[in-house]
Amino acid sequence: MNGAETLLRTLLAGGVDTCFMNPGTSEMHFVAALDKVPGMRSVLGLFEGAVTGMADGYGRIAGRPAATLLHLGPGLANGLANLHNARRAGTPLINIVGDHATGHLRYDAPLASDIAGFARPVSHWVHSAVSADTVGSDTARAISAARAAPGQIATLILPADVAWGESEGPADPLPHQALASVPTRTISRVAERLQSATNPAILLRGEALTAFGIETAQRIAATTGAALLADTFAPRQRRGAPFADVRTIPYFAEQILEFLAPFDLLVLVGAKPPVSFFAYPDKASWCVPDHTRLARLALAHEDACTALSELADHLGAKAVAKPDVPPPTYSRDRLDQYSVGAIIGALMPEDCIISEEAATNGPGIALGTQGACPHDYLRLTGGSIGQALPAATGAAIAAPDRKVICASGDGGAMYTLQALWTQARERLDVTTIIFANRSYAILNVEMQRMGFTEPGPVALSMLDLHDPAIDWCKLARGMGVEASTATTVAEFESQFEDAMRSRGPRLIEVVV
Amino acid sequence: MNGAETLLRTLLAGGVDTCFMNPGTSEMHFVAALDKVPGMRSVLGLFEGAVTGMADGYGRIAGRPAATLLHLGPGLANGLANLHNARRAGTPLINIVGDHATGHLRYDAPLASDIAGFARPVSHWVHSAVSADTVGSDTARAISAARAAPGQIATLILPADVAWGESEGPADPLPHQALASVPTRTISRVAERLQSATNPAILLRGEALTAFGIETAQRIAATTGAALLADTFAPRQRRGAPFADVRTIPYFAEQILEFLAPFDLLVLVGAKPPVSFFAYPDKASWCVPDHTRLARLALAHEDACTALSELADHLGAKAVAKPDVPPPTYSRDRLDQYSVGAIIGALMPEDCIISEEAATNGPGIALGTQGACPHDYLRLTGGSIGQALPAATGAAIAAPDRKVICASGDGGAMYTLQALWTQARERLDVTTIIFANRSYAILNVEMQRMGFTEPGPVALSMLDLHDPAIDWCKLARGMGVEASTATTVAEFESQFEDAMRSRGPRLIEVVV
Repeated sequence: MNGAETLLRTLLAGGVDTCFMNPGTSEMHFVAALDKVPGMRSVLGLFEGAVTGMADGYGRIAGRPAATLLHLGPGLANGLANLHNARRAGTPLINIVGDHATGHLRYDAPLASDIAGFARPVSHWVHSAVSADTVGSDTARAISAARAAPGQIATLILPADVAWGESEGPADPLPHQALASVPTRTISRVAERLQSATNPAILLRGEALTAFGIETAQRIAATTGAALLADTFAPRQRRGAPFADVRTIPYFAEQILEFLAPFDLLVLVGAKPPVSFFAYPDKASWCVPDHTRLARLALAHEDACTALSELADHLGAKAVAKPDVPPPTYSRDRLDQYSVGAIIGALMPEDCIISEEAATNGPGIALGTQGACPHDYLRLTGGSIGQALPAATGAAIAAPDRKVICASGDGGAMYTLQALWTQARERLDVTTIIFANRSYAILNVEMQRMGFTEPGPVALSMLDLHDPAIDWCKLARGMGVEASTATTVAEFESQFEDAMRSRGPRLIEVVV
Repeated sequence: MNGAETLLRTLLAGGVDTCFMNPGTSEMHFVAALDKVPGMRSVLGLFEGAVTGMADGYGRIAGRPAATLLHLGPGLANGLANLHNARRAGTPLINIVGDHATGHLRYDAPLASDIAGFARPVSHWVHSAVSADTVGSDTARAISAARAAPGQIATLILPADVAWGESEGPADPLPHQALASVPTRTISRVAERLQSATNPAILLRGEALTAFGIETAQRIAATTGAALLADTFAPRQRRGAPFADVRTIPYFAEQILEFLAPFDLLVLVGAKPPVSFFAYPDKASWCVPDHTRLARLALAHEDACTALSELADHLGAKAVAKPDVPPPTYSRDRLDQYSVGAIIGALMPEDCIISEEAATNGPGIALGTQGACPHDYLRLTGGSIGQALPAATGAAIAAPDRKVICASGDGGAMYTLQALWTQARERLDVTTIIFANRSYAILNVEMQRMGFTEPGPVALSMLDLHDPAIDWCKLARGMGVEASTATTVAEFESQFEDAMRSRGPRLIEVVV
């Protein structure tokens, strides 16, 4: 058995059975091993930014790591931006990065580069395998690192001679660092704080945003009067009518400060204190009001759900009625984020997955689906645009029986549009909605917020995508995905209804 | 004057007047300054891999650095693969990478990352500006670093508060390390070696592959009987009938060894000794035959043209007749790389630029244009696919009066297809030819060469792009570029002739 087969068998033994890939020559032994060792779902992406984004989406939905297979330093480099998002999401993920044979490195061939250097900024764990004999153990360590709570990025560099060298076989799985217990003293301290606060809020992220986490938090809220808040960039959030009392913290610094102003206590459950996404000359970075005290119930690597349970019990909290949500109101005369969001909310199937990176058009989607049937919502965790399409693709691989709805701005979608090809190839049940405003619209807002009230023509042209207008139907069809354009509410409703009734990849360009 | 304006004015004072960009919020002060300071050609790309590839193509043709403007760590990360190619090309290039304000960094906002860590593997020089007062000097140092021979990658990180802070104004240009002189003793030593060799060859790269370099090498060849060779992955090579005696070293290790077998001396002029691109279990990495001695006339940072001149004078070499090249033969019955290459060679205009990354279809392009009118040829220097379309785009910005022809495989073109949008926006005179074999064809070859003579269905499917077939006409039109498909030689000839007669971006999908 060679090193590649050993690696593959160790991945499978460790429960890693899906690999998103864009291989090259140095990975041919791994690719060849896929036929020798059954059981690895192998998904090809035509660009590594799509590949890593798929692995992120997969990990968020499956709750366990996928592997990626990437071609040397530049292949990894192309995937780094979505690995940055995955790192911010706390997604478990294992990169296998092929390298030149160890003896070949000294010749400085054209593709030689500092792979570990590329990997470090996004990886919690990096290792370059040195021998086929130990690559099984290295792989087991990589899986263990990736599965450490709440989820980490592990990068294993695989020199070609390690892949083709003879080995003694796969390694057994290793234990991993599970979610840590929250100490009892923390539970009682937070309980005291909640009971003595006038107007407390509980900010949820990670496991705390599962159905169980939110339901437990709802019991606490009912008994303490606390408001329930969700992190602005939660990796995954259970949403819909039963969870509609969880309000998401807004995006801009001044909005956050205003939003949090009523609260004298903010209990953090798997979340960090809210800060401004960017810095501005005259705006705050730290977005917790001075009069708001912070209390930490659980950090990201701690067992937030159990802590919430214990806190609820400690407070004697009882089961509560579900919130009552009126359906969203919108104008049928205007195709915009609010009509689109309301129609999505009305027509989407139960337990679907929404991958949303609609930027300036995001609020309408969130609003329209707030009172809809229960679903999971994936957000842009690291701010690196180009996440939504690949993440939707990976989510559909992880959950083949669930409808996936992807809502993206046109600017962001252009970064990793290659994900559409994989959706067509794998016949994935993803409906992609592109908001075609033909602009980096958020940057027009940011330009104003930076104090440039009358930007000049050159600056404005750098934010403008009208010339030429991108035709998303052509792009989608060029990659084998059925597509249509909606310019009215009725058109969108009819196209989206059709997409919900059928299976398979589909794109709707919404001209706004 | 703020730091951003200071930076911009210092770039312009240092002769850097073109900036390829994909800005975000943290770069808004730089973008706003573009209207205050005239003279910076600002070119928007919709993905950073396209942006850095454009800057590479620009630098190779202009011979001086362009700047890029990139959005924090992930923006830089998306551009790294083509920066790897630019580094291998010795292209002068300056990255300006926006960062959070220095005071904002401690809040670990979603987009915060180790920017310098991302930059180091591809950058010869990395610096993070600390103050608006010194950002002018930092910029002058970055230009100086980028212009150091033969051309380097300089990355200047620009925190937002440095961009918006008040400064005292731009810095004067600094000197840079020009091409180093080759010592006289090296000239005479190489002359002796050439005179005593039975069958010498001279391997050219960099400046040695300009018209002057090759013509001087031709004089040396005529007097010493040396063969003239070009590096397999030369960043830029003057080609066409007058230079047709320069033969390019082939790609595969065993081919290189066979190709070099006749020579007992290999004189390196700006080139490194040939090595295998990849390593294989049973093939050589070092591709210089045992009986071939090496002599170095000039290293990459040395003045190869002057050294060639001095060597020619030392040898008493006279001007020589130009080589006589028969037109290529090809079958008009078969649309393949040879007919396409011959038609390109026959119809392309004088002094055009060819950006070629056609992989398995590359040899036909090189052969068909070998005896054509004089032109510049840009190759994939670092092996990171997705260079050709952006490099063609940047070359067209650098040389607006020259026709640019881009030949790419479909696999490679998918990595940075966003470059087509910039071609449309800037009305660039680029004709793109996509070889649509719907396969990572080179990997099928490599699979065999790795010893897998009968790869299984999973492995084969990872190299196959047939399902769905990518429709390049739709993709191009989706980004505003006129496109057509050729399935016969006559169709290609007619479409290519039309493209040569008109100006502006155009794509021809060649189904092979």
